[in-house]
Amino acid sequence: MTRNLLLTLMYDGSRYHGWQVQENALTVQECLQDAIETVFGERLPVTGCSRTDAGVHANMFCCNFHTVKLLACERVAAALNARLGEDIAVTHCREVPEDFHARYSCVSKQYKYLIWNGQARNPFYYKRAFHYKYPLDAKLLDAAAKGFIGSYDFSAFCAAGSDVESKTRTVKAASVSRHGDMVEFAVLADGFLYNMVRIMAGTLIYVAEGKIAKDAVIDIILSKERGRAGFTAPAHGLYLNRVNYDLGGAED
Amino acid sequence: MTRNLLLTLMYDGSRYHGWQVQENALTVQECLQDAIETVFGERLPVTGCSRTDAGVHANMFCCNFHTVKLLACERVAAALNARLGEDIAVTHCREVPEDFHARYSCVSKQYKYLIWNGQARNPFYYKRAFHYKYPLDAKLLDAAAKGFIGSYDFSAFCAAGSDVESKTRTVKAASVSRHGDMVEFAVLADGFLYNMVRIMAGTLIYVAEGKIAKDAVIDIILSKERGRAGFTAPAHGLYLNRVNYDLGGAED
Repeated sequence: MTRNLLLTLMYDGSRYHGWQVQENALTVQECLQDAIETVFGERLPVTGCSRTDAGVHANMFCCNFHTVKLLACERVAAALNARLGEDIAVTHCREVPEDFHARYSCVSKQYKYLIWNGQARNPFYYKRAFHYKYPLDAKLLDAAAKGFIGSYDFSAFCAAGSDVESKTRTVKAASVSRHGDMVEFAVLADGFLYNMVRIMAGTLIYVAEGKIAKDAVIDIILSKERGRAGFTAPAHGLYLNRVNYDLGGAED
Repeated sequence: MTRNLLLTLMYDGSRYHGWQVQENALTVQECLQDAIETVFGERLPVTGCSRTDAGVHANMFCCNFHTVKLLACERVAAALNARLGEDIAVTHCREVPEDFHARYSCVSKQYKYLIWNGQARNPFYYKRAFHYKYPLDAKLLDAAAKGFIGSYDFSAFCAAGSDVESKTRTVKAASVSRHGDMVEFAVLADGFLYNMVRIMAGTLIYVAEGKIAKDAVIDIILSKERGRAGFTAPAHGLYLNRVNYDLGGAED
């Protein structure tokens, strides 16, 4: 009987060229598949909840794979962790229904974008937050971020070259908060377009700089013109923070 | 006229063999003196507030040096940061009285010791927290830590080989708190002996393991026997967190 296993990961993406396997580049998926091959004795394809870009981090990332091996879930995480680098951790393993798919079964995801807003850099956030030294007004940015909420065609917040059929997504929550010198943008949606969160973050920076009015976000969305949104903020500030499924129980 | 400049630093100590210059090893002091030499045009000795060990981090570290150059304080931090690695940041520079000494003028210091208490490792705290996977009772450890408070001869919490004259120190505050899976031990004192905080942290782990009773800390202190305290917890969980001076104003 085939089992379908759901793994929850956490990783520092600094060293990796994103999640998905590619030639001549280190990826999280390849490292994980190598570890699974050692533990389960065969090469098994692993399905990820999304394709994170090079340098993007994950406080929570989910993926699944099918196996006939009977290794207990409680032992899978420890066995895989022993074979992965210190910058990847398997935090949980559970058996899920046969038809569960880490990407298609996903109900919603939350991303966070971290901006270190101190005058000097923070050594503990090197490659882990975007350093922006001019003072940001978190309340202003929070008001602007509220404009992202709703069901829209988010073409204006999608990098060129994306070939998805529909660019309509539903943003359920969006907020900006300050914790000392760290400014955090959090956004929850049923799905995300390519570079969507990074363009949203860059748009908020433009709002801070007065290049975009705080009430203009909705106009930019409705225009569907990428050129009217802000720049693509760097990958290293981005974290996949939460992946939600309807599984009748907590995933982590 | 000679000026005395006080620098406040933050650093990730992972790559460094501690603060103090030594032969054939990279240290924070040497990197800083190199940067100062480039900016000020001469090799100037820098006095640190303490000697952190290899792998120990600093959320705040203070040091001072004397110069006749008139470079404005506001420009010193940025100039030095441009010449230091990403894992060191100069967060502040101010002019202090001629007789100010980063070590001898220090009124008190606070250290923190971070213990990642999740079952799996946390990739974002690799080399930045001690990973201890068995559940810790923060309230029990907090009660035990209260035993450290007071003026005592802390010989039992000092590594062998230390040649300081007096081993009496006054611990003003000590506490253990939990934030999710992170357990944090914080201790404030007028001064610290060699490895004192790491031995205190190791003693708290022994309390958690039932090897030392939670009320036994005071007996261990009074015994002055190093062998009765716990192990020396690893350096990478330790952070110098705060350095206090009487300067009639905030240092940072």
